[in-house]
Amino acid sequence: MNGQELFSEERSAAVVAASFQGTRDERLRQVMTSLVRHVHAFVKDVELTEAEWGKAIAFLTATGQQCDGVRQEFILLSDILGVSMLVETMNHRTGGTSTESTVLGPFHMVESPPRELGANIALDGKGAPCLITGQVSGPDGEPLAGAQVDVWQANEDGFYDVQQPGIQPERNLRGLFTTDAGGGFWFRSIVPRYYPIPADGPVGELLAATGRHPYRPAHVHFIVTAAGYRPVTTHVFVAGDPYIDSDAVFGVKDSLIREFPVVDAPARAAEVGLPNPFRTVHFDVTLLREEQAPLAAQPAEVQPIPVPGALA
Amino acid sequence: MNGQELFSEERSAAVVAASFQGTRDERLRQVMTSLVRHVHAFVKDVELTEAEWGKAIAFLTATGQQCDGVRQEFILLSDILGVSMLVETMNHRTGGTSTESTVLGPFHMVESPPRELGANIALDGKGAPCLITGQVSGPDGEPLAGAQVDVWQANEDGFYDVQQPGIQPERNLRGLFTTDAGGGFWFRSIVPRYYPIPADGPVGELLAATGRHPYRPAHVHFIVTAAGYRPVTTHVFVAGDPYIDSDAVFGVKDSLIREFPVVDAPARAAEVGLPNPFRTVHFDVTLLREEQAPLAAQPAEVQPIPVPGALA
Repeated sequence: MNGQELFSEERSAAVVAASFQGTRDERLRQVMTSLVRHVHAFVKDVELTEAEWGKAIAFLTATGQQCDGVRQEFILLSDILGVSMLVETMNHRTGGTSTESTVLGPFHMVESPPRELGANIALDGKGAPCLITGQVSGPDGEPLAGAQVDVWQANEDGFYDVQQPGIQPERNLRGLFTTDAGGGFWFRSIVPRYYPIPADGPVGELLAATGRHPYRPAHVHFIVTAAGYRPVTTHVFVAGDPYIDSDAVFGVKDSLIREFPVVDAPARAAEVGLPNPFRTVHFDVTLLREEQAPLAAQPAEVQPIPVPGALA
Repeated sequence: MNGQELFSEERSAAVVAASFQGTRDERLRQVMTSLVRHVHAFVKDVELTEAEWGKAIAFLTATGQQCDGVRQEFILLSDILGVSMLVETMNHRTGGTSTESTVLGPFHMVESPPRELGANIALDGKGAPCLITGQVSGPDGEPLAGAQVDVWQANEDGFYDVQQPGIQPERNLRGLFTTDAGGGFWFRSIVPRYYPIPADGPVGELLAATGRHPYRPAHVHFIVTAAGYRPVTTHVFVAGDPYIDSDAVFGVKDSLIREFPVVDAPARAAEVGLPNPFRTVHFDVTLLREEQAPLAAQPAEVQPIPVPGALA
């Protein structure tokens, strides 16, 4: 037989996978073959009905049609299914020796303005004042002078500046800092607030139908880069946030949660240029060297799916 | 912990699946949980890169945006991944005792016009004349008088009438027949021709990138219904078609292939109202009774994926 085996329920995945054997790009062939195997296994696992298949087609179509220049509903879908976090994590394994990464998110659409250490990025003066400090270092603890620390966060109302076009000041709560001779950075901002991902489209409907909320726990975004080292895209999360253990996009990692304690010290407040009392957080960042080989996969967890808390 | 376990590569599927545990609709919970497990397994299996993830997002978005009132690109995607055939086959198991089903396809958009037995549905007079005959019966061989036989097919150029709006005559190559006292049907048409599925969108690009052609082997569509029996949606395929073993949508089943032999018999041609010589095909249809219970799944085939021909 020149072409494929004929289709049957039992050998469906094998027949369809075989149709991709002529793919010249070896990687594309591998990806399509694996995709077919997993999609067919899913359809068989749940014995998908024709009505459910129709709903899936309608959902995917609506998701594609929700996308435009400022809204990417398929990324949102990837986010709430934990796929974005999985891809991010697999492609930036740390082996526990450097700062863990998390999702970039959709709000790094504009360049952060370069600012002097100590600057206040809360341009509108709203929110609980907060001093943010940290040090960037390499794997042996060597301080990294001249590293770039790019930060951005949502405002007191839970919006990023790009979500409120026309509202002044522009580039509120964004800044690009350069570490000092000791690798240190510090700047003034506000304590971030939790916020919902856009929930007025098909992904929001899916969250509602499955009893899930759309909130992300409060966080400040960081991208830290230094010549000769691997960059890291990450967040620092506010300990105690009501959504810290139910992030809609699964971005929280234990190693990225920090206390934001209150400091009641008038002299220190005056020194850093904040009203007394103020909040503070310290977040050190460790980078891997560029030449370090990518790390191998962690052993995958298999059946059965534990109920919440069973791994605690 | 109130909410989810925090995310990690090793327990990603378990953490995300747990987020769906609050879904009130038990079936939706089952489907989402299985979907998450299989999607995460796929991403880990191929170690999807960030660039590949980006391409996948762009592909899905373009697929959604290709859809409109007359084009459904996600159904096309489901078709070329064999998912449509799998869902159709799983939901219409025959146990080998009745006519097998295959995909409905996107071209049954209009009602077929009722016609008398023997009518010629090739209204434009183009193509190789063909006499199509058959009998509809139940599981014990009982002939089903008054059964409805709905047929449609592509024309000599490989197009369905609905793909060529404005071209007369309307409803060319469609007919709704009623079986006679012996369950028999017969009508005149043309030998169908292979044709490509729409290949000018993202799905066509995927086919091209993977070295697959977009053709479906020649076939006539049937939907056969009878009171008290389960309807069947199927095709009869032309044996020897160049694409019979490489249908772009995997619709071909052995049991649905028929010879379309040439008949060279002037008296018979005159009797049926066709020029001599003419082609002919005989396709009997057996229906299950409505009350027969759905059949269980066939045992699934597992690893490894055989190379083409290995099962021959």
